[in-house]
Amino acid sequence: MRKKIMVLAVLFFYFGISLFAQEEGYSLEDALDMVWLFCGAILVFVMQAGFALLEAGLTRAKNATNIIMKNLMDFCFGALVYWAIGWGLMYGADALKIIGTSEFFKGPMGDYTFYRDWFFQVVFAATSATIVSGAMAERTRFRSYLVYTCFISAFIYPISGHWIWGGGWLSELGFYDFAGSTVVHSVGGWAAVVGAAILGPRQGKYVKGPDGTISVKAFPGHNLTLACLGVFLLWFGWYGFNGASTLSGMDPAIARVCVTTTLSAAAGTVSALITSWIWFKKPDPSMSMNGALAGLVAITASCFVVSPGAAVVIGLIGGVLVVGAVEFIDKVLKIDDPVGASSVHLVCGIWGTLAVGIWGNTEGIAVGLLHGGGFHQLGIQAVGILSVGAWAALTSLVLFLAIKATLGLRVTPKDELMGLDITEHKTEAYAGFQIFSNM
Amino acid sequence: MRKKIMVLAVLFFYFGISLFAQEEGYSLEDALDMVWLFCGAILVFVMQAGFALLEAGLTRAKNATNIIMKNLMDFCFGALVYWAIGWGLMYGADALKIIGTSEFFKGPMGDYTFYRDWFFQVVFAATSATIVSGAMAERTRFRSYLVYTCFISAFIYPISGHWIWGGGWLSELGFYDFAGSTVVHSVGGWAAVVGAAILGPRQGKYVKGPDGTISVKAFPGHNLTLACLGVFLLWFGWYGFNGASTLSGMDPAIARVCVTTTLSAAAGTVSALITSWIWFKKPDPSMSMNGALAGLVAITASCFVVSPGAAVVIGLIGGVLVVGAVEFIDKVLKIDDPVGASSVHLVCGIWGTLAVGIWGNTEGIAVGLLHGGGFHQLGIQAVGILSVGAWAALTSLVLFLAIKATLGLRVTPKDELMGLDITEHKTEAYAGFQIFSNM
Amino acid sequence: MRKKIMVLAVLFFYFGISLFAQEEGYSLEDALDMVWLFCGAILVFVMQAGFALLEAGLTRAKNATNIIMKNLMDFCFGALVYWAIGWGLMYGADALKIIGTSEFFKGPMGDYTFYRDWFFQVVFAATSATIVSGAMAERTRFRSYLVYTCFISAFIYPISGHWIWGGGWLSELGFYDFAGSTVVHSVGGWAAVVGAAILGPRQGKYVKGPDGTISVKAFPGHNLTLACLGVFLLWFGWYGFNGASTLSGMDPAIARVCVTTTLSAAAGTVSALITSWIWFKKPDPSMSMNGALAGLVAITASCFVVSPGAAVVIGLIGGVLVVGAVEFIDKVLKIDDPVGASSVHLVCGIWGTLAVGIWGNTEGIAVGLLHGGGFHQLGIQAVGILSVGAWAALTSLVLFLAIKATLGLRVTPKDELMGLDITEHKTEAYAGFQIFSNM
Repeated sequence: MRKKIMVLAVLFFYFGISLFAQEEGYSLEDALDMVWLFCGAILVFVMQAGFALLEAGLTRAKNATNIIMKNLMDFCFGALVYWAIGWGLMYGADALKIIGTSEFFKGPMGDYTFYRDWFFQVVFAATSATIVSGAMAERTRFRSYLVYTCFISAFIYPISGHWIWGGGWLSELGFYDFAGSTVVHSVGGWAAVVGAAILGPRQGKYVKGPDGTISVKAFPGHNLTLACLGVFLLWFGWYGFNGASTLSGMDPAIARVCVTTTLSAAAGTVSALITSWIWFKKPDPSMSMNGALAGLVAITASCFVVSPGAAVVIGLIGGVLVVGAVEFIDKVLKIDDPVGASSVHLVCGIWGTLAVGIWGNTEGIAVGLLHGGGFHQLGIQAVGILSVGAWAALTSLVLFLAIKATLGLRVTPKDELMGLDITEHKTEAYAGFQIFSNM
Repeated sequence: MRKKIMVLAVLFFYFGISLFAQEEGYSLEDALDMVWLFCGAILVFVMQAGFALLEAGLTRAKNATNIIMKNLMDFCFGALVYWAIGWGLMYGADALKIIGTSEFFKGPMGDYTFYRDWFFQVVFAATSATIVSGAMAERTRFRSYLVYTCFISAFIYPISGHWIWGGGWLSELGFYDFAGSTVVHSVGGWAAVVGAAILGPRQGKYVKGPDGTISVKAFPGHNLTLACLGVFLLWFGWYGFNGASTLSGMDPAIARVCVTTTLSAAAGTVSALITSWIWFKKPDPSMSMNGALAGLVAITASCFVVSPGAAVVIGLIGGVLVVGAVEFIDKVLKIDDPVGASSVHLVCGIWGTLAVGIWGNTEGIAVGLLHGGGFHQLGIQAVGILSVGAWAALTSLVLFLAIKATLGLRVTPKDELMGLDITEHKTEAYAGFQIFSNM
Repeated sequence: MRKKIMVLAVLFFYFGISLFAQEEGYSLEDALDMVWLFCGAILVFVMQAGFALLEAGLTRAKNATNIIMKNLMDFCFGALVYWAIGWGLMYGADALKIIGTSEFFKGPMGDYTFYRDWFFQVVFAATSATIVSGAMAERTRFRSYLVYTCFISAFIYPISGHWIWGGGWLSELGFYDFAGSTVVHSVGGWAAVVGAAILGPRQGKYVKGPDGTISVKAFPGHNLTLACLGVFLLWFGWYGFNGASTLSGMDPAIARVCVTTTLSAAAGTVSALITSWIWFKKPDPSMSMNGALAGLVAITASCFVVSPGAAVVIGLIGGVLVVGAVEFIDKVLKIDDPVGASSVHLVCGIWGTLAVGIWGNTEGIAVGLLHGGGFHQLGIQAVGILSVGAWAALTSLVLFLAIKATLGLRVTPKDELMGLDITEHKTEAYAGFQIFSNM
């Protein structure tokens, strides 16, 4: 039994404070929502670590420090600009259904709902931004990346986000994206593919032979163990990403979201494994990992409104799609995306957004093709995909071209060969280890 | 203050949905239970990452990709078959107190309790399955492992699970296993030891000298840092494993569970450290790590019904046991379990199940030998250990022998020497690093 | 729908138990607090993994196992002695406002609040203890470290903790440290700097040239990827450290704590990056990582009572301070702290404690200089910093000198050169890898 003296001190220091801080009418439901969104937000935060490990693990040792620095910095710069500008554009007072216009640099006057909602939203903004780092890995100037990441978190992501989650025109149209297949993943995916295309491939990636044919080289990742840990952390964090997107801890559908998320991710992993096994004659580890992410991205828009069986199908198709997309972007489009970020986040983001219009089974929210809704929802989903895609692709294009024309987007060929850890950061990721870093 | 337009949109998109989805009479208690089981389930999920790192870290670099793929895949295949078959056998309508008979491929009609409970249970099933991957590391065919893991998650684990947690005969007898020392860990441990024995040791593990004596070689793990991270993640996840096994967020005994879990794990680590220091004249890292897991497995059955002091003793004994068991299984039985999975999960699982019958102090649940309960509870615990052991060992035996006779269980000697990453997956875990992979 | 038989079994096994264990008058508010403190405690627990990775990653491969063993063991020994002794000294019945005097080895009679509060507090004690391992890395005897860690968790941390959080004299004076910039971080930081000073620098760290000038060598860390993962895990865990220090899940200010914590950490990272870029002409990875931790430590005392804008400023200054402090301690004081623990935890701990007296904006708790409070709170904060500093520095000094005089604090020069993994633990962290371990 603690003695009275300590109890009094605790009452003074904590309860006193708590009572003081307590808002009028802050109910148990409000408190549960707070705890719920807290859990969701920190889980999405940990996805930053997942992305860092996945991207570092799937690229070469000589660029590992650079990758993790980019992942760390896009969260840090992103959080600051999303506080200063991004939040206001996304959730500030609406103008013309296309943009928010208030709540910049929001200060101490905010009631708790602002703090709570900002914390939950900033981690989503950071997720969208960080998707790009993998696609542009191993050849981008560090300072240019910092500029890019500020722009996506401050402008590109929040404005299309306003259309869908901030009360803008797409939400009024009936577009449905529960946790962000389009809002978060496709937007990041468009920036990723545009950035990778403008940058051009890594040296030695596409080599023209004497007969004019182009051979495509694969650069194996330097640490698949860490890459797989990254996948586990991403999957773990995704339960917050999807689960807490109910925005309320009082929603019994949290459970359904978790089940559909689990089954789609599992199905995506299994189908990517099998696809790679049949196609490449090996149970491919990096394809399987991307399959897990494909299943997760694909279920993100619809996890609230589909059945477990539909989730399995959505994931299975996502897993096949991601393998095909990696091959297509790499071999046919010849865009060098070292970790397959565009295949995972853009292609499966589109797929997941469409899936709402096919398997949506919830009257009043989204009723898809297979549940008697005809092509109505599917059409709206397509409008959202196209308009957000146009916005994200065009603004990314302008942004990357502007950076290219001013700061420069790419390191020198010599620096690229030596590795960005040494040339950009004057350090090595693995001091003391014998590494063939230019393989 | 967010403007009205967004509030309306949010109301429409989220509150509208939530109200729609709301079940009649979904109370705050129900909501808290949901949040609680969500937290528990995702913590148990992250144990998959812990196992992957622990097992990869304690084995050789040439097999690291294979290990992590097995860990990823046993969750993915496991989730699909546990949805299709396993859940129904474990929690479907009981037949004869030995098996469940309904709820296979459960679809959209499920109310939220099905979704919630399935999500919480699937991660336990996956834990049981994944225990085996470490014991069979470095020599098992990948496709054979996939077949095995489907069977344990679909049949072996759910059926004995039904006996104890699904309303079967052992639960009626009064057998008590709070969070699964027997249900989860011993079942996995039996499959592990049977699998390792049928596979046979890794090449070079037991070498007969010219004088007929057999020398036992240790293959050091390739990354103890990651193995230790694995232990931390397992310990972290175990708070969900044990804590959320109250099944209710309204239970004040959650706190006791956390304290006994912490103290037993700490005591197990310390006693394994000291045991190894005295026995082998060095404070052994891998023994200490296994000591932490030993303490965790040992308290899993009884964490709800013992005092902090008893938890310390249970952990201390667990830590000694695991060191002895590793030596016994390796040196005397000459079963090659590369990571000590059988010692941790089987031996300490049995120990933890017995501990209920010794230190159980809770009237109406379990009263052990030292609290005036005589040998009654201890006897029932022994019955459970023996019957579940017979079930798991026999079915594993049949399963592994059947796989051996058909697909083949083991890779070729040459493939084993080259490492499973290259031969099974056509990849390397650590491209670019100079590795002596055949040490 | 689950059948009746299982429901009955569940009722018997779980609900029966739960009802039995239910305390009189255990309300939903109590239950939410329990879940909240559980989440907080396990998040702080995972910081142990973060510290282990950060410290291992920033030091050399030949000492990696030793570092992770120290981090694992300080939690395990710490938990046992904090149960036996530390809790009682910190939260037992107060004597003279300076020490607790009861609740040692607390047993099964405790009501749930003891269990809950102990679980939340033990992880803070372990954090304080583990800070030291990095500063003393690469040259400390393992057995001596174990003795040290028992003393800090059993005596040093709990006694000054009692002054502030246990109802002692500093709390009565009005000293305010919300989540432990002083209670946890400065105490660990003082022990770290004293320990590093008494140990002396690593061999080859400060080399006197023929002309008498001393050149300072940097030993690069062996795995920056893991170090960065450590930072992400620490940041993730810090949401529990700060967030759950409300001690109540009913407090709407949880949200403000999360926002100020996020912004300060982001600002600290950005300012350390920019400081290092200007000062050393490179965007330095380890400085940036320490900048994140600097921002986190700096906001820990004040996160409850400052605005988002103030949090940004506190973090920005913290990030500059940590870079300056690392250089000052290394180059001027010539104290060899391999991971910069004193700069992060001591210097920024002091800074964060002072920040309460500058930006505190909450009537009734802490009103700082810039909010009309004059120097009143600032003065009290300084008294706390000085008195806790004197206590921690002096007791650490006595402790380390006593260990040095008896067990010996440092390994032999030859053992240091070979690395502590081989010499202290007879193992290698990275068996099979080609490593230049003595660089």
